[in-house]
Amino acid sequence: MIHAERRARLAAALPEHDAGAVLVTSPVNVRYLTGLSSSNAALLVPAEGDAVLATDSRYIQTARETCSGLELVEERDVAGALLARDGLPAAIAVEGGHLPVGRFRRLAGALPAGRRLTPADDLVETVRAVKDAGEIEALRRACAITDEAFSQVVGRIAPGVTEREIARWLEAAMIDLGAEKPAFDTIVASGPNGAIPHHSPTDRPVEAGDLVTMDFGARHEGYHADMTRTVAVGPPAGWQRDLYELVRLAQRAGRHAVRPGAAAREVDAAARGVIAEAGHGGHFEHGLGHGVGLEIHELPFLGPDRTGRLEDRVPITVEPGVYLPGRGGVRIEDTLVTRDDGPELLTLTTKELLVL
Amino acid sequence: MIHAERRARLAAALPEHDAGAVLVTSPVNVRYLTGLSSSNAALLVPAEGDAVLATDSRYIQTARETCSGLELVEERDVAGALLARDGLPAAIAVEGGHLPVGRFRRLAGALPAGRRLTPADDLVETVRAVKDAGEIEALRRACAITDEAFSQVVGRIAPGVTEREIARWLEAAMIDLGAEKPAFDTIVASGPNGAIPHHSPTDRPVEAGDLVTMDFGARHEGYHADMTRTVAVGPPAGWQRDLYELVRLAQRAGRHAVRPGAAAREVDAAARGVIAEAGHGGHFEHGLGHGVGLEIHELPFLGPDRTGRLEDRVPITVEPGVYLPGRGGVRIEDTLVTRDDGPELLTLTTKELLVL
Repeated sequence: MIHAERRARLAAALPEHDAGAVLVTSPVNVRYLTGLSSSNAALLVPAEGDAVLATDSRYIQTARETCSGLELVEERDVAGALLARDGLPAAIAVEGGHLPVGRFRRLAGALPAGRRLTPADDLVETVRAVKDAGEIEALRRACAITDEAFSQVVGRIAPGVTEREIARWLEAAMIDLGAEKPAFDTIVASGPNGAIPHHSPTDRPVEAGDLVTMDFGARHEGYHADMTRTVAVGPPAGWQRDLYELVRLAQRAGRHAVRPGAAAREVDAAARGVIAEAGHGGHFEHGLGHGVGLEIHELPFLGPDRTGRLEDRVPITVEPGVYLPGRGGVRIEDTLVTRDDGPELLTLTTKELLVL
Repeated sequence: MIHAERRARLAAALPEHDAGAVLVTSPVNVRYLTGLSSSNAALLVPAEGDAVLATDSRYIQTARETCSGLELVEERDVAGALLARDGLPAAIAVEGGHLPVGRFRRLAGALPAGRRLTPADDLVETVRAVKDAGEIEALRRACAITDEAFSQVVGRIAPGVTEREIARWLEAAMIDLGAEKPAFDTIVASGPNGAIPHHSPTDRPVEAGDLVTMDFGARHEGYHADMTRTVAVGPPAGWQRDLYELVRLAQRAGRHAVRPGAAAREVDAAARGVIAEAGHGGHFEHGLGHGVGLEIHELPFLGPDRTGRLEDRVPITVEPGVYLPGRGGVRIEDTLVTRDDGPELLTLTTKELLVL
């Protein structure tokens, strides 16, 4: 059973955090560890012994059906109910990156004597970074939907259509193709808006001579694809073609640096160096990439200040960009998976400059 | 300027929380108070004086364009940068319901001497509960898209189509009609699945004799519609018709109790009493409704244990349901707005039992 195996990996990590158990309350982490999707659930995983899941009446029937082999508690105050149980260890870790401080204080204040809550960062997230075959298959399908949506929509981009229309077409195509939902709010940035890395689509009509950057993806079985392509509307100017080629080479250098054992900052540097070499270091101010999975941004992160190394079977994005204020920008992004024998590319759309 | 007026209402609430300023870090609250949508921004609002907004390089250009009149700081550690500024008051409130305990501890540990952070719940959420005309107009449009999507899709429901297909049709229709995105993950629960209030759509094909519950909505300009309808596939059995009529009457009673000044628990009781009277009190275990706005679930909440009273111009859902384990269920939900002269219904789809 895959969820029990995940809980065992989490339990094995508890001693190094000086905790005898961990209380998991973030919905995505509860889902990862139990299979239950719920807005109100909590899971107690002890270093030794059996885990217990609490949820309320809205979700309890689903929990009974999907979480076989897991002790269930029906309660609205899910975390309080678990923390009040007999026989718990003294030190119980909580999710420092998720549990709101107000709720933490209420839970800590109601604890039985002799127990304490210790916030720990990224306990479950670290376990989640390395994916199993089923997770990678879900991502592969999410990326295939993303590729196919791009291919259906790209031919409709022409002078006069708006950023918002393009975003809607992409999202509708993904849903038609079987996506659960878009993995995140689609970015469509045309012309000068392309200089804004996280631009929200507007009613600006695309014009001949624009570069148009689209950053989007599908969610499938909870797993998030992430892809960016920049296309040219009409023949590109010299500076646009040069900028595109620069980013394409930087992205390739980044992809080629992705392998188990590579330091997060090395992979970032491989791409960033190409851009800096061309004098555009100051126009690429975000990190090179991030893990994807049950969240669109998750461990590990690639950037100049990031620590840690990639492991085998870690899905990650590589997405350098160059942004020229007032003029426009280019970003190219793939989702890929670290593999011992070289990265597996999941987003397969061409990275040649498409001139529409 | 609407955002400045919202910040002024927030500032006015600070003295009763014994705070000289508040640090706002939740993205939706930053958006509400500044207009900036960002995954990494923080806003410091003092009880007296001018607010300051911090965000990183990815969002700073958008902030410059959209947040005129607000002092801007470009920094990756947005909260740390604001808390280190000169001239702040000693007691600074933080969002107890949002700020993760790990981040709270790091920020508190790095504070200049003489300052302290005090978690406070629902500071901004309380300000958000009462909507202005522009917000209600956005909700009205979101609800109109929701109604129209239902009307486009309902005729396609027939034996053999799956829950997942119906959910996709609804979501695709909403996007085609101009929704930014679905307001939340669409629920489609057919036959016995209707007994699960928050059922995720499956590949179960609808069968003749099923009740089918659809809970869905559109998001428009950040504002979330929420509607539920239950329909019958083929002529309903007597128990199905009776159950539907019971929920319809309960929902009507709940709607009629919605008015400025009504206690949250009274409104809940108005609907719940109808269901309890019929002997189904144990089959309606969730609250009657919730506020909607920039979030799909926000203040105020209607339920047996909820305190507080409704005010004028508060959008709220009324959504009683009866769930019979193993058999099925009925839920009927509208989004409406409290008004002095009676609630304004925003979701206009018929509540007569549709037999398909």
